Amino acid sequence: MAEPPATVTGSEAGEVSTTRMEAFSDGVVAIAATLLVIELKAPAPGEGLGHALREEGPSMAAFAVSFITILIFWVNHHALFATVHHVDRGLLFLNGLLLLAITFISYPTAVLGPALRDGTSAHAAALLYALVLAAAATLFTVLRIYLRARPRLLRPEARPRAATAVRRSLVGPFLYLLTAVVALVSAPAALAVAALVAVFFTLPPRGGKRPANAAPQT
Amino acid sequence: MAEPPATVTGSEAGEVSTTRMEAFSDGVVAIAATLLVIELKAPAPGEGLGHALREEGPSMAAFAVSFITILIFWVNHHALFATVHHVDRGLLFLNGLLLLAITFISYPTAVLGPALRDGTSAHAAALLYALVLAAAATLFTVLRIYLRARPRLLRPEARPRAATAVRRSLVGPFLYLLTAVVALVSAPAALAVAALVAVFFTLPPRGGKRPANAAPQT
Amino acid sequence: MAEPPATVTGSEAGEVSTTRMEAFSDGVVAIAATLLVIELKAPAPGEGLGHALREEGPSMAAFAVSFITILIFWVNHHALFATVHHVDRGLLFLNGLLLLAITFISYPTAVLGPALRDGTSAHAAALLYALVLAAAATLFTVLRIYLRARPRLLRPEARPRAATAVRRSLVGPFLYLLTAVVALVSAPAALAVAALVAVFFTLPPRGGKRPANAAPQT
Amino acid sequence: MAEPPATVTGSEAGEVSTTRMEAFSDGVVAIAATLLVIELKAPAPGEGLGHALREEGPSMAAFAVSFITILIFWVNHHALFATVHHVDRGLLFLNGLLLLAITFISYPTAVLGPALRDGTSAHAAALLYALVLAAAATLFTVLRIYLRARPRLLRPEARPRAATAVRRSLVGPFLYLLTAVVALVSAPAALAVAALVAVFFTLPPRGGKRPANAAPQT
Repeated sequence: MAEPPATVTGSEAGEVSTTRMEAFSDGVVAIAATLLVIELKAPAPGEGLGHALREEGPSMAAFAVSFITILIFWVNHHALFATVHHVDRGLLFLNGLLLLAITFISYPTAVLGPALRDGTSAHAAALLYALVLAAAATLFTVLRIYLRARPRLLRPEARPRAATAVRRSLVGPFLYLLTAVVALVSAPAALAVAALVAVFFTLPPRGGKRPANAAPQT
Repeated sequence: MAEPPATVTGSEAGEVSTTRMEAFSDGVVAIAATLLVIELKAPAPGEGLGHALREEGPSMAAFAVSFITILIFWVNHHALFATVHHVDRGLLFLNGLLLLAITFISYPTAVLGPALRDGTSAHAAALLYALVLAAAATLFTVLRIYLRARPRLLRPEARPRAATAVRRSLVGPFLYLLTAVVALVSAPAALAVAALVAVFFTLPPRGGKRPANAAPQT
Repeated sequence: MAEPPATVTGSEAGEVSTTRMEAFSDGVVAIAATLLVIELKAPAPGEGLGHALREEGPSMAAFAVSFITILIFWVNHHALFATVHHVDRGLLFLNGLLLLAITFISYPTAVLGPALRDGTSAHAAALLYALVLAAAATLFTVLRIYLRARPRLLRPEARPRAATAVRRSLVGPFLYLLTAVVALVSAPAALAVAALVAVFFTLPPRGGKRPANAAPQT
Repeated sequence: MAEPPATVTGSEAGEVSTTRMEAFSDGVVAIAATLLVIELKAPAPGEGLGHALREEGPSMAAFAVSFITILIFWVNHHALFATVHHVDRGLLFLNGLLLLAITFISYPTAVLGPALRDGTSAHAAALLYALVLAAAATLFTVLRIYLRARPRLLRPEARPRAATAVRRSLVGPFLYLLTAVVALVSAPAALAVAALVAVFFTLPPRGGKRPANAAPQT
């Protein structure tokens, strides 16, 4: 992994270069997204395919929403670390928690599909799903707050915007907490809202306003 | 991840460098190909190996065809992004859908093996398989159309060939729709056609004509 | 993979560049961490989510501790190879054993969760878990001893510190053997100790003293 | 992925740079090695851990041998592509088959463990295991033969040694066919021989003679 001068850390012990940390995080996020597919169940022997596809429909919808959501987390992760000059142990640990949360998305996704189909605990499953997404989004905000308090970790040009970046990054947790509220009313609607949130984050910024987290790249 | 000057994006917010997007896509595609193998079932306790291998034969054939097909999608993905200078949010989102489709190939592959063995829903399973491959191939075409309409995202030398690239990339969806028609007649024949399509895409271009998608590299 | 001059190996046959070996190791470690999540079981059909989450609680705790532990092994692996100038076959083989141990952590993690819940073999499961972590940590020490005896494999500036690095790297195995002793008394306490060890390793070094393995980066 | 000048392909359509092909192959091989662990079964509810570990012993041995073997395939793959200057479509396709074979090792590994434990089809399972390893090793030889016939794909300094490289690469298939013969006599002995072959390939070259495949690096 070539390390361009700008991102190589200094000689402080226990630090990892931004470049290498991003590459490792990319690996974890790519695997987390791809592993989602193994939760989809092929038809049981003798079961007709049409019936099986209808049964797996909710699981497929949850798979697609989680996959796109994890991809957006990846974009945001990239944008966040594009502002980072230096990785210290605290940032390393917080990033570890963020990767843990992203990896964990697989579990509520696997729970949500069957719950939507059978109705058993559908509200609770959608609530869990929204809360795990909210937790991942909140960890982005926590990372931003950590960086705001330690400007030396940021690239010089990103330092003036650190406070703005924190405020903007609150949009993510807010939207997923809204999704959690919707989950109490309707589980399918909560999944639809999560899908809308994903689409919202891929929209281009309007008039200088940009979606949270994805913004202050340079 | 070192970013050679030519592929580093400008300072627009929310953009991801072509280099990094390719590296991430490579990760997802590599995992999607490798995960296919976990759908192969070891013999049940007490079951003879010869019997188990005969039972898993169709699943192994589907595994091999999907694996090589995903590898070819990877080559085409590489060729496509070799023409890209700049990644915007729309391209990022379309690429996400393409990765979703490639990752999803695992599911119809897992369905096809047992369907070929038992005969239950074999035509429907082969049809599903062909349609998912057609969807992935179509997303390549959609990406090409998106790029044709936004020449600033393309490398200068690739811009004159953008329209040709769209037309050529129609070969993929066409061949997989043909596979879908074959599936209505014979499920094993559809798998064989999909294998032939994969071999076709690995053949060297003849007389300046090149297989769709894989062509306009520079 | 660009190879900066400093890490490209010489012309000896059968050697792998440090850069490439690190990238490959990163891949294995990232996958090992992410695969842990597939051991978490979604509720059985008809089972309430609340009940299922309580049942899976211990498995989730074990998942989180193993995930963070593997991330710390990754950091230590990076710090270790930052001192390596040259990879020979012995180092390649020892690194292979280390990757094997890290990958294997998935198994005792999958065993520990249900054992904590049911009480069946809980002490034995926690002991196995601690011993596998101890084995992985010990392989770090073995790698350091191997390097101390072959200074030509180390970067010049790391050679004077090779003996210190070996001594410091003994902290890891020691802490996990302590965890194993705790396992004989209480299985949940052993998991808690493993979590504390992980947190300990992410703390910044105090007064020039640094956690084992993570220290002598340059 | 930065591409150092020496490995960037020319402007021929449909070619993939050596660098990128290696990075992708590394990803597939790393995943293939790591996925092996998910075949290990945690104890059934209520089953004692000691009993379960004894039951899984053969599976763990097969896991360890396959893991190390795949790591050695990775080293050999690296050594092979260190001699490659240029990747054409044929090499891409043959490399795809090699990756398919390496990924497939997971299946006979999953079959071998239970077969060794129960004795059902143990000889057949060990034979299948040895033949799959032989097939992967043979694909290395096929790649070498392909390259010998197309010296323009090789780096200039590797061309004079192409014929020697083919001969040396026959050691791998030979050793695994020997393993297959041993499998007819004793399944556990075949696994032990496969382990010895792995250790043999990690030994440093003696007196200028080097293990097959891993040799002609520069």
